[in-house]
Amino acid sequence: MPEPGPSPGPVVALAGGVGGAKLAHGLQAQIGDRLTVIVNTGDDLERHGLLVMPDHDTVMYTLAGIANSEFGWGIEGETFAAAAMLERYGEPTWFRLGDRDLATHITRNARLQAGAGLTAVCLGLQRALRVRATILPMSDDPVRTDVRTDDGWLEFQDYFVARHQEPEVHEVRFRGAESAAAAPGVVEALDAAALIVIAPSNPIVSVGPILAIIEIRAALDRARDRGIRIVAVSGIVGGKALKGPADRMLASLGQESSALGVARIYADLATDFVLDNVDAGLAPAIGALGLWTHVTDTIMTDDTARARLAAECLAIGLSQAT
Amino acid sequence: MPEPGPSPGPVVALAGGVGGAKLAHGLQAQIGDRLTVIVNTGDDLERHGLLVMPDHDTVMYTLAGIANSEFGWGIEGETFAAAAMLERYGEPTWFRLGDRDLATHITRNARLQAGAGLTAVCLGLQRALRVRATILPMSDDPVRTDVRTDDGWLEFQDYFVARHQEPEVHEVRFRGAESAAAAPGVVEALDAAALIVIAPSNPIVSVGPILAIIEIRAALDRARDRGIRIVAVSGIVGGKALKGPADRMLASLGQESSALGVARIYADLATDFVLDNVDAGLAPAIGALGLWTHVTDTIMTDDTARARLAAECLAIGLSQAT
Repeated sequence: MPEPGPSPGPVVALAGGVGGAKLAHGLQAQIGDRLTVIVNTGDDLERHGLLVMPDHDTVMYTLAGIANSEFGWGIEGETFAAAAMLERYGEPTWFRLGDRDLATHITRNARLQAGAGLTAVCLGLQRALRVRATILPMSDDPVRTDVRTDDGWLEFQDYFVARHQEPEVHEVRFRGAESAAAAPGVVEALDAAALIVIAPSNPIVSVGPILAIIEIRAALDRARDRGIRIVAVSGIVGGKALKGPADRMLASLGQESSALGVARIYADLATDFVLDNVDAGLAPAIGALGLWTHVTDTIMTDDTARARLAAECLAIGLSQAT
Repeated sequence: MPEPGPSPGPVVALAGGVGGAKLAHGLQAQIGDRLTVIVNTGDDLERHGLLVMPDHDTVMYTLAGIANSEFGWGIEGETFAAAAMLERYGEPTWFRLGDRDLATHITRNARLQAGAGLTAVCLGLQRALRVRATILPMSDDPVRTDVRTDDGWLEFQDYFVARHQEPEVHEVRFRGAESAAAAPGVVEALDAAALIVIAPSNPIVSVGPILAIIEIRAALDRARDRGIRIVAVSGIVGGKALKGPADRMLASLGQESSALGVARIYADLATDFVLDNVDAGLAPAIGALGLWTHVTDTIMTDDTARARLAAECLAIGLSQAT
């Protein structure tokens, strides 16, 4: 049983991009290097022959304090001299990479090519940027998210960036997930966790791929079985996604675009569910799924709001552990 | 026998970096797409997992009119946002690449990785930059120049950039040259040439690797045998290299650091030798090597000077063909 107080032991967060990065930033502000973030790699893609990891890098830049808050991706004060030249060479530029961001992909590519593992390379990048938490890709093996639309199966970034999330999504698959091993350190972190937080990322395409890794799902089940709280935070507030297409995706996949719809997805995994004040009326129905409910302000408008929501998630792991 | 006049037929230039790029620029101004430049690839290197081709790219940027005249390498108005970030990641940055220049290496890397040949990739880059001439790498096979110094064998760019050409060079080798095939189009261009120009590049480490490719050397010998003029331009003026370490390298390799020293290197290959006015006194000795000598102003201070020297080289191929 963890002691109440400022030292709750190691915490693991499962996260996708921006929403996950914000909560991770709040958690890092509270517990520093006791935080491990497991990030989705299903959105990763190859651009100009380089591996690009949107979720890992958004979380890394956010935790390093250099994220571009204007764009929601990339690095603050970014320039695009290389992108203009890539365009001149006829390279496809719908996924526009800034000059500093390119340095991340170039460095990662060089080190992977030299034989280093994906997680080891990512940890090196994080260290260089003085990130206090540990960010682990969910797997060193390639897993790729595809969505089936009226235009057929699309790679995730084609749907997300090139087509502006406009096509309706009828089905989602995570190529490679079944045979992918959890990345080095992932199972160990989950087995050592005193608390697990599922960030308010898209439950289908951001958290979904993480849960599709068999070793990770098993470790989460083990954690719950040994009494660890698994706290999921709703990324749907008032029926709308705070960012991205989660609301429309839930609807087109035949689920409810609401905190209740999200809670149903996590009902067989999480112990606790955090929902926004505006959705307080859904708390009884969510409670009926067998989840402890926590109604609070979940909108992370600034660093203070991030830290406060993070503190509330941490408090759940302490005060209500059974 | 070529007709006198503005249409001398196809011309091939052998070139290294800056000096070669300047004369190639002058030749392109005179004859446009009838120019083929065969560039040294012995200076090529891997940086951050990407193939960098200093001589090809210097010639390409110069012929595209976007070369950085201040640095002598890279692209005009270059920025270094990615380089600063690469440094932050702990990447070695002694070979500092600008943001736009990086786009060249990224694009080339992506296309090579996708299976395209080196020459095909380079031609695609040149077309995108609207280069009128054709720039051919000497070989698609890797050839790498090493220099032996008091510190032992060094890769060329380690000597040239990292150590500022300070160590004395006692020996030079071109790794891979013996088994390297001429790149697609190189032998064909030489066999079709009405005139061949050896640019005022370093005769040892810029032109030397090109001549070390057996197929290229054989094509040059064939051209001379069929009466084609091979015009070498001295890059040593008044005993000094206009740029780079050619003068000290000639001396430390036991040769004469003068236009005569350069002429001796080319004596068994060239038919003609262009030397600067200040070296007019060396003309008799160079003539005694069996070379036609042409004394003129060889300093290419601006575009007009480049075009004028180029015109003089072209005129040799016309007026004095035997």
